[in-house]
Amino acid sequence: MSLIVQKYGGTSVGTAERIRNVAERILDYHRQGHQVVAVVSAMAGVTNRLIELASDVTGPDHTPTEREMDVLLATGEQTTIALTAMAINAMGGKAVSLTGAQAGIETDGVHTKARISNITPSEVHRFLDEGNIVILAGFQGRTPEGRITTLGRGGSDLTAIAMAAAIDADLCQIFTDVDGVYTCDPRVVPVAKKLDEISYDELLEMASSGTKVMQSRSVEFAKKFGVRFEVRSSLNDNPGTLVREETMSMESVVIRGVSLERDQAKVTITGVGDHPGTASKIFGPVAGANVIIDMIVQNVSKTGITDISFTLNKADLAKAETALKPVLAELGESVTMEAEDGIAKLSVVGIGMRSHAGVAAQMFETLSAAGVNIQMISTSEIKITVTVSEDQIETAAQAVHDAFGLAKA
Amino acid sequence: MSLIVQKYGGTSVGTAERIRNVAERILDYHRQGHQVVAVVSAMAGVTNRLIELASDVTGPDHTPTEREMDVLLATGEQTTIALTAMAINAMGGKAVSLTGAQAGIETDGVHTKARISNITPSEVHRFLDEGNIVILAGFQGRTPEGRITTLGRGGSDLTAIAMAAAIDADLCQIFTDVDGVYTCDPRVVPVAKKLDEISYDELLEMASSGTKVMQSRSVEFAKKFGVRFEVRSSLNDNPGTLVREETMSMESVVIRGVSLERDQAKVTITGVGDHPGTASKIFGPVAGANVIIDMIVQNVSKTGITDISFTLNKADLAKAETALKPVLAELGESVTMEAEDGIAKLSVVGIGMRSHAGVAAQMFETLSAAGVNIQMISTSEIKITVTVSEDQIETAAQAVHDAFGLAKA
Repeated sequence: MSLIVQKYGGTSVGTAERIRNVAERILDYHRQGHQVVAVVSAMAGVTNRLIELASDVTGPDHTPTEREMDVLLATGEQTTIALTAMAINAMGGKAVSLTGAQAGIETDGVHTKARISNITPSEVHRFLDEGNIVILAGFQGRTPEGRITTLGRGGSDLTAIAMAAAIDADLCQIFTDVDGVYTCDPRVVPVAKKLDEISYDELLEMASSGTKVMQSRSVEFAKKFGVRFEVRSSLNDNPGTLVREETMSMESVVIRGVSLERDQAKVTITGVGDHPGTASKIFGPVAGANVIIDMIVQNVSKTGITDISFTLNKADLAKAETALKPVLAELGESVTMEAEDGIAKLSVVGIGMRSHAGVAAQMFETLSAAGVNIQMISTSEIKITVTVSEDQIETAAQAVHDAFGLAKA
Repeated sequence: MSLIVQKYGGTSVGTAERIRNVAERILDYHRQGHQVVAVVSAMAGVTNRLIELASDVTGPDHTPTEREMDVLLATGEQTTIALTAMAINAMGGKAVSLTGAQAGIETDGVHTKARISNITPSEVHRFLDEGNIVILAGFQGRTPEGRITTLGRGGSDLTAIAMAAAIDADLCQIFTDVDGVYTCDPRVVPVAKKLDEISYDELLEMASSGTKVMQSRSVEFAKKFGVRFEVRSSLNDNPGTLVREETMSMESVVIRGVSLERDQAKVTITGVGDHPGTASKIFGPVAGANVIIDMIVQNVSKTGITDISFTLNKADLAKAETALKPVLAELGESVTMEAEDGIAKLSVVGIGMRSHAGVAAQMFETLSAAGVNIQMISTSEIKITVTVSEDQIETAAQAVHDAFGLAKA
């Protein structure tokens, strides 16, 4: 008998029928002799409808109070837990629902993006010990004073992983609409393979470079507390990808996967004086405009004058340009700005990179042979990222995926 | 400065615009210098949609678990409190929402119709002391173990009255879609007058005889704890009807009002032996069929044989007949059953009746003069009820209303 924590997202519980399917799946695990805690999200679309209602009530000129936004949004998951538990009970199972607060999930008081500070799972244990399936509301908790909070984007994954840690579960399963983590996006590289396992760091680097499986926050939490979890499909019974601490054998694989991210843009500031404070003069105003920047590249300067480039989401380009214009004059007469969209990022990720030389060289050679021009390069310990023209990203991804033998993974 | 508890029903908060109207009204009271706790119901229609969803999930052959039904239904009021608080905040006020559990409303564990056992309003006081308007979820509470419960029909009125008692409010206002309690239904008797005040007992008797203002349960609670409350309209600023303990001066009014109830039916069992156990043989099976019966009339028997009549809702007549058929044979060969619908009940109610003789006589004379035949008569200390043919109920009500001078009230 294992203790399993499962998580089902909003699409998996989006209709009454889908809730019944999820209920059956949960019940199957329970009938196999496992203890099950199932974390569920709000039914797909519900959260957006609640946000709309809030905006209707407060009017366009006011932002809803965040404390109340959390009270409102928390009803979404509360609805799903009740319905899922009912469905299981109607099928002859024995299930009880728990809100985040009832399950002892304590958070700080930062409404709409609270952080879990502590979990006291005594109620969860009590219900499990009595033979119940526990249906737990994702995405929510309470402050020590009893205020309702929500955890922000990816909050239900976080609930599952944190609860798995708190109750020392044998397994945590994140059910989603994909079969697991792939060596590359199968829509781009049809021969991409599903990975049996991947390390936390590799998944984190893949997530930050465009592979949307889970929010980094949940993976970081899992890494910190050593929670192994499996990403798998709620639509079939195929085994998924196990995400876990790295092992010796993982290092023998040089590259775990290839990530790509489209819709990027690039800004280059040329002729900048290479002295302290220049970077903050540039990036301060950009951050102030709520623009998230990604790669930053600055070459070594020989003349005391250098160029600084950075990438950002295409949608934020205009905002960034507006924020930077007043800065240019300050930086000096010869300083100019070039902005360009139609850029994409390509990354190779793998902890094996640490112990294998020549990965970068092999990647650059491969791209060159494929006729793909590299614009910017940035590396971390287990990742190499380049930007290329967006219309070459598929060619680039296929070539690199092939060169590192990932189809045979 | 007064401490006011207000209650707004589902229709009053049925749309985003109506929530804004309610928010404005609450804010007005607060700006006049009062402390306000506003109890709100689920938006009109929401509860029914949730019940439908529950039924979709469990299927037609299963009843949703009551524990989970409460978790589900409680989201209705939780949504409204968040939206109402947001609306007030957007208008420049300072409001916080509290669920029943957060407000310290403790109940027994009888899901879907829990009874309030205790209220610990420390959070309510704390927020009021900090200058907040408190928006409180009606209809819900929690058990000492932390389970979510709902209070059943009329639960939001009960929340308001119980909270008013717990925080010793100066005034409790039940906002509804009528202007108050009338001497009779104004659709039947156009000259009916709104009452300035009425005693708990009078309102209880009027409620039990067809005047639908509030559930008896809330009025009984108010009576028990001496909570004065005002029934008034959320659509205008007219003063409503104050419901309170009876006073000496109330007794000078013989009749407070006239209630009528249509869609009644009558069952008469004739030739029944007048000995112990007969009544329970008849009413046991009827109760077993979940039929609520109302007036029961049995005449004094001279011959050891008597007739028993009772009234019930027309919709339940077939159920009652089915339940009674097997009983008839048991009761004796000569026992017969007559059933009749097309009946209505007319009641006059007033605590002044106790000290004024001849009320019944005056009522019967009035009906006789109006050509209305009386079928059954039943009396309590402060009420006289008769049944008449349903097609004569309006004539009867007008005549009695006129005879007791209620238009001059």
